[in-house]
Amino acid sequence: MLTYSFENLGGESLYIHLYKCIRADILSGEIAPGTRLPSKRSFAENLGVSVITVENAYAQLISEGYLYAVPKKGFFAAALERRVPPEKPATVKAAVPDTPRYFADFSSNRTDPDNFPFATWAKLMRGTISAQNAELMTNAPCGGVPALREAIAAHLYAFRGIQADPDRIIVGAGTEYLYGLIIQLLGFDKIYALEDPGYRKIAKIYESHGVGYRLIPMDHDGVRLDALRGSGADILHISPSHHFPTGIVTPVARRYALLRWAEEAPARYILEDDYDSEFRLTGRPIPALQSVDAAERVLYMNTFTKTLASTIRISYMVLPPHLAERFYTQLGFYACTVSNLEQYTLAKFIAQGYLEKHINRMRNRYKLKKNRILEEMERCGLFCVAEAEGAESGLHFLLRVHTAESPRAIERRALENGVRITCLADYYQETPQHPEPTFVISYSAIPDARIPEAVRRLAQAVGVAGSA
Amino acid sequence: MLTYSFENLGGESLYIHLYKCIRADILSGEIAPGTRLPSKRSFAENLGVSVITVENAYAQLISEGYLYAVPKKGFFAAALERRVPPEKPATVKAAVPDTPRYFADFSSNRTDPDNFPFATWAKLMRGTISAQNAELMTNAPCGGVPALREAIAAHLYAFRGIQADPDRIIVGAGTEYLYGLIIQLLGFDKIYALEDPGYRKIAKIYESHGVGYRLIPMDHDGVRLDALRGSGADILHISPSHHFPTGIVTPVARRYALLRWAEEAPARYILEDDYDSEFRLTGRPIPALQSVDAAERVLYMNTFTKTLASTIRISYMVLPPHLAERFYTQLGFYACTVSNLEQYTLAKFIAQGYLEKHINRMRNRYKLKKNRILEEMERCGLFCVAEAEGAESGLHFLLRVHTAESPRAIERRALENGVRITCLADYYQETPQHPEPTFVISYSAIPDARIPEAVRRLAQAVGVAGSA
Repeated sequence: MLTYSFENLGGESLYIHLYKCIRADILSGEIAPGTRLPSKRSFAENLGVSVITVENAYAQLISEGYLYAVPKKGFFAAALERRVPPEKPATVKAAVPDTPRYFADFSSNRTDPDNFPFATWAKLMRGTISAQNAELMTNAPCGGVPALREAIAAHLYAFRGIQADPDRIIVGAGTEYLYGLIIQLLGFDKIYALEDPGYRKIAKIYESHGVGYRLIPMDHDGVRLDALRGSGADILHISPSHHFPTGIVTPVARRYALLRWAEEAPARYILEDDYDSEFRLTGRPIPALQSVDAAERVLYMNTFTKTLASTIRISYMVLPPHLAERFYTQLGFYACTVSNLEQYTLAKFIAQGYLEKHINRMRNRYKLKKNRILEEMERCGLFCVAEAEGAESGLHFLLRVHTAESPRAIERRALENGVRITCLADYYQETPQHPEPTFVISYSAIPDARIPEAVRRLAQAVGVAGSA
Repeated sequence: MLTYSFENLGGESLYIHLYKCIRADILSGEIAPGTRLPSKRSFAENLGVSVITVENAYAQLISEGYLYAVPKKGFFAAALERRVPPEKPATVKAAVPDTPRYFADFSSNRTDPDNFPFATWAKLMRGTISAQNAELMTNAPCGGVPALREAIAAHLYAFRGIQADPDRIIVGAGTEYLYGLIIQLLGFDKIYALEDPGYRKIAKIYESHGVGYRLIPMDHDGVRLDALRGSGADILHISPSHHFPTGIVTPVARRYALLRWAEEAPARYILEDDYDSEFRLTGRPIPALQSVDAAERVLYMNTFTKTLASTIRISYMVLPPHLAERFYTQLGFYACTVSNLEQYTLAKFIAQGYLEKHINRMRNRYKLKKNRILEEMERCGLFCVAEAEGAESGLHFLLRVHTAESPRAIERRALENGVRITCLADYYQETPQHPEPTFVISYSAIPDARIPEAVRRLAQAVGVAGSA
């Protein structure tokens, strides 16, 4: 009869030890397929353990399929192919290189941790946990918890003049996730039109979903209508209030022309990505395209990752009524991707006026930062050989350098100076570009104290004599 | 010259008021396209406001495209098509009907709010906010913050015997979201094979992504290999440790056969959805398929929405090394969909042993609840006409009724008694079913105090005489 040692169990229970021993013998072939195992009682006696121990071990082996029971005959080893146990798999080197450290990184959209209202957020979160246990444990509707959607509706009306019924607001874990939902809603067979230049990740997302897209060149009013018409696209994905990275604001005449384009065919829509409208630093916010859309052709989208923190993954979209209906019918089975706790906390943050205060504070802070950077640029003579464009809005502007030099040479010299800048060329995919080297200057991540030195080093890289 | 009243501004600034007046006149056609507007200075004098006010109003109108400036000539109204302003859009009736109230809902997987360790969670969250501001504001790698992935790796090793390098663990906002990522990773052109019967939502997700899928009938060991081979599928999506809703545990011989199937062609994979392995209530956990996968063919997936709370949206997958590499190259541009605060909080919850304690407590509680329900069923004679199947694991079991009656009739009578049950038939899509009425009894949402009465009403619906 089989016999196993029960010494050196090392904390393992008797039955698990026995289970492992038998399993090893079946896997190694020591116990051949079809072999009848001892009866529980005799095995227990033989091993000096209780019948329960053998019973538990057999039960586990049966449930995993190593043994099978034949009523009134006993327990038999199953037929298994022998397998080499897997080796410890090779460690994957995450393709995330160590982040290099720069003296100043004009390519980062990271915001200062000090800007986030931690104390308020923590207080609201605490209040949510202690008072709303039942709500926190109740599954949210697919579009998000009603309290948050109502708060967003009120915010949109006050800040953007958008009248959005809360039922038409769909909350999701980041804009990238919502793009995926929109593709599922509007169709994988549709052709999507994107701005060129533009935010590259958007093209990657469409590509990754296997849907066709066309790149539409832009003039100084936004996407070119002739190119859009010629593209055969069904869905236009744009940021008309503040294009990234050029800063172009699409004027009202072009907006109406785009809306007209959408109305010309039944399955045409415009996806309005309003990613940083809160950070228009001069003048009033540009009205949303959605707010003049009488024909239900605009899907509006915005995010709190920009206004609050990039590590808070809450975005939302406002669907026109007929698409909202379609969303509930077709995609209503999806669970909302944002946890209830964060949804309720954000709802209070908005409803109690903290978001408004926070946006105002940030807007002032960024305005000051941007002005200091422009003043430094002026002071060190950068504007003798370069000019800033699109500095009235958002957390970046363009710096166009009047030189015959290649942008890569300037970019490289800046890097050698510890300053990282991004070439505008990196955002172009197909459209021929402006010949002069142009850089996208994102300034939110530059600490105030480093501004003079950062700008001096940048000016030196550009080749301004006085800055050396 | 144009003139506007500046009375009754109601808190509006002068320039915004002026901007709105001019815009209204341009939109209505009162100011015709091409009309030259007054110079800033003369307009200001005429209106009795400062030049700055006119300047700001003109600037806003220009940036939105209502006016255009001609150098040295002045400001002109742009040509616009007149548009009817949109009416307030119709309210969408969210297709979410009011949840009906049942005396007992055996179809809900909701868990009792009292089960969630709110105090611990709040404490860890508070600690995270006060000590980790910088980390909270730093964008996480696409796969999730390292602290959480390390905690998951340790947990997987201890609980499931899975050796997973943290770099191969990808965190995401719910399993449904991860399915979408997997489709993007493995290909929209692949054919996916699903269990029939099965969790219907899985088929919906594939359908919604426009990818082909086949339904594979099951025998008592899991998906049938002949049907799988005949299906032409590339990717097999299964829950081998505890199938929903039948409770089938795929035995080791079938597991090896499935792995062999996957190894036969280069693009074949198995997606192992281990959604409730923590709730095996008797015996040891069934080892994961992934842990015997020597050929890198298994993608393992699990979630915390089941163990912690359905309203916490954190799931993860473990990719085989070569797919992890491909993930970083191909999908590494995606931001992680779970907010940093929740990731760090969960990391501590796992690393400090709270998850283990919580799972043990829940397992005991569910075991007691399940046993009480089975005892009540026995007591009121239900097992004279019915039998329970698959009750050793998970938060549900099957109740098979020996009768020639239709399952719908029993379901309806139960509903009339205030008790909701789900027919097993609802989980079948194509495969012919067992002829006897069978019901899926999910018991996690039934309050202990209601168990006797809920079971009595259920027995009455089934037609057990003594229960009336």
